[in-house]
Amino acid sequence: MKFNHNCNISRKARIGKDVLVGDNTIIYDNVEVGDNTIIANNCVIGEPLSSYYYSLKSYKNPPTKIGPNSLVRSHSIIYAGSSFGSNFQTGHRVTIREHSFIGDNCSIGTLSDIQGYITIGNYCRLHSNVHIGQKSRIGNFVFIYPYVVLTNDPTPPSNVCLGPIIGDYAQIATGSVILPGIKIGENALVGAGAIVTRNVANMSLVLGNPAKYICKVTEIKSREKNGSHYPWMHNFNKGMPWGQIGYTKWLKTNLIHKSRN
Amino acid sequence: MKFNHNCNISRKARIGKDVLVGDNTIIYDNVEVGDNTIIANNCVIGEPLSSYYYSLKSYKNPPTKIGPNSLVRSHSIIYAGSSFGSNFQTGHRVTIREHSFIGDNCSIGTLSDIQGYITIGNYCRLHSNVHIGQKSRIGNFVFIYPYVVLTNDPTPPSNVCLGPIIGDYAQIATGSVILPGIKIGENALVGAGAIVTRNVANMSLVLGNPAKYICKVTEIKSREKNGSHYPWMHNFNKGMPWGQIGYTKWLKTNLIHKSRN
Amino acid sequence: MKFNHNCNISRKARIGKDVLVGDNTIIYDNVEVGDNTIIANNCVIGEPLSSYYYSLKSYKNPPTKIGPNSLVRSHSIIYAGSSFGSNFQTGHRVTIREHSFIGDNCSIGTLSDIQGYITIGNYCRLHSNVHIGQKSRIGNFVFIYPYVVLTNDPTPPSNVCLGPIIGDYAQIATGSVILPGIKIGENALVGAGAIVTRNVANMSLVLGNPAKYICKVTEIKSREKNGSHYPWMHNFNKGMPWGQIGYTKWLKTNLIHKSRN
Repeated sequence: MKFNHNCNISRKARIGKDVLVGDNTIIYDNVEVGDNTIIANNCVIGEPLSSYYYSLKSYKNPPTKIGPNSLVRSHSIIYAGSSFGSNFQTGHRVTIREHSFIGDNCSIGTLSDIQGYITIGNYCRLHSNVHIGQKSRIGNFVFIYPYVVLTNDPTPPSNVCLGPIIGDYAQIATGSVILPGIKIGENALVGAGAIVTRNVANMSLVLGNPAKYICKVTEIKSREKNGSHYPWMHNFNKGMPWGQIGYTKWLKTNLIHKSRN
Repeated sequence: MKFNHNCNISRKARIGKDVLVGDNTIIYDNVEVGDNTIIANNCVIGEPLSSYYYSLKSYKNPPTKIGPNSLVRSHSIIYAGSSFGSNFQTGHRVTIREHSFIGDNCSIGTLSDIQGYITIGNYCRLHSNVHIGQKSRIGNFVFIYPYVVLTNDPTPPSNVCLGPIIGDYAQIATGSVILPGIKIGENALVGAGAIVTRNVANMSLVLGNPAKYICKVTEIKSREKNGSHYPWMHNFNKGMPWGQIGYTKWLKTNLIHKSRN
Repeated sequence: MKFNHNCNISRKARIGKDVLVGDNTIIYDNVEVGDNTIIANNCVIGEPLSSYYYSLKSYKNPPTKIGPNSLVRSHSIIYAGSSFGSNFQTGHRVTIREHSFIGDNCSIGTLSDIQGYITIGNYCRLHSNVHIGQKSRIGNFVFIYPYVVLTNDPTPPSNVCLGPIIGDYAQIATGSVILPGIKIGENALVGAGAIVTRNVANMSLVLGNPAKYICKVTEIKSREKNGSHYPWMHNFNKGMPWGQIGYTKWLKTNLIHKSRN
């Protein structure tokens, strides 16, 4: 890739220090890109909203912000009117529509489709091919696996739009569908292929079509050591802020910090 | 986007009045684009069929037609030999193969994959990431939600190709799979995640894996008012031809028009 | 498409005879393309690995090999460090990550996402939108249908990565999910929408969520003739090496060849 060579950056965009922009990438008006961020080739950042096509002359692009130290992989399309924190990462061919507010240290996998008007907290990972319907609200440290869909219309088609609400630390496994307005509790585990039609309590494993309560996640054995794998934060630290110090210590420190703020 | 600037339009294409074509878009031979249509950036319209690669010199591109007042969003690939009515819309990265015949006022969502040799009526909406297998036949006013697949091979792999048949006004919810040759009745509702292995009668709700009959759709309550949400045409008019006059009145007028023709 | 015109081929790539490369395609360092291969427009071949972004100056691209007589359709991204045999074909917008080793006569459908560190044998067909998790091992003559996912983390999230193992001649139908480390036997048939949580024996049909054993595949009737459709090799030869001579004869000849080598 030749960076900063054959790309098309609006004069009304604000580009940070040491930003690299790949071939054929377009950055539209009113986009702000943080320092040290890489936008790879063939991306569109600040894609104009639908209204643009019907008011070509009077249209003004709403602000879009991509935090520092981010990496947007090739062929991704990010609409105007969205905001992403620091250390944001995407796979290839990601589509993110307007009014998507995503925190720090999140990653969105290849082919994922974020429909806009959603919030995602910090340290979330959406793997490849995840579909997030409008009005979804996703907490912190949530991992969502391939081909999961968060839906929002309880009586299709209707004018009601009820996004799912996903609690902190929840894990939503491959190919599951979360029905409109469903709440997934903190630390819950939704098994692969589950069709979730009822709220899921904290710390619960659900499986099946329709999804049924199976057990507490603490009953799921680890494959790596004796005892339970869940809550997973005690057994997984890749990319997580607790790193080598461990979740328990980190949580204490973090809670102290929080109470001081 | 700069329109009509850095695109590549065959001299053998016929482009209507006030058509806008985005950067890096290619329009091949024998494509006809109706008036006031917008083809966004990085699209391929009239993509040559597979035989092209094996007969580069003698190949002739079959005709492709995109109706007036259409909007094809960026990175979409539309093969030659297909036809789309007026007010056609696509999301991004749509792939539509040859011999796809789609009526007026239809939209095809981001990442959807239409395998060709299919028909779709008028006022149909395919949301993001819908997969339509060859030989599928879809009526009018059909809505299909994300990650639905219409399959066609009853004994994979075989030489038998039986597309599903979807009746008017049917709603096929997220993540369901319609097995080969299955008929979905008019006004039927296929629930999220249903694996549909038997024909579905008119006005029926089916759910589950395998999908089972649950009740008449008229038994499903509205979230917006007293009474049933279905048939949905009485409770939803966004983009529908009955608009504010209501479905019942529109139907009467429409039937009069039809009988006069 | 204008071939070999507006593309960007590294001087450190080795391009065979009569290779055609489409507009806007990038071929990076250390890529080898076999004779008579076509790489269509807007592809990226030899995409640098993630480490590239963090060591722009010292990075060296690992070798990538695409066999002769191949056809890579437009907008596909193939990472460096992978290898594909002869007669390789892809659909559009395929993503294949590093350390994917794929044999001869294989095809990978539109939008499929191969996560890398996998092996696929000869004569395999992945249809549109198939997701292959890391560490998957797929035999020969395996067909995988749309929206199938091969997963690999048994306790998400964890550091354990157990890819599924798919036996020769197995058929994995639309929308099924294969759980981590699961073995699918030779000639098995996984039905549409199956969530496969246990190993599947040779010649078995499984269906449902969770998938259950239904019968031997030999009990499934053909739609084209009297008797069983399975093992399918006796009833399907499109693109298969036995062609008109039939599977039984081919197998004998092939076994003789093998024993001589």
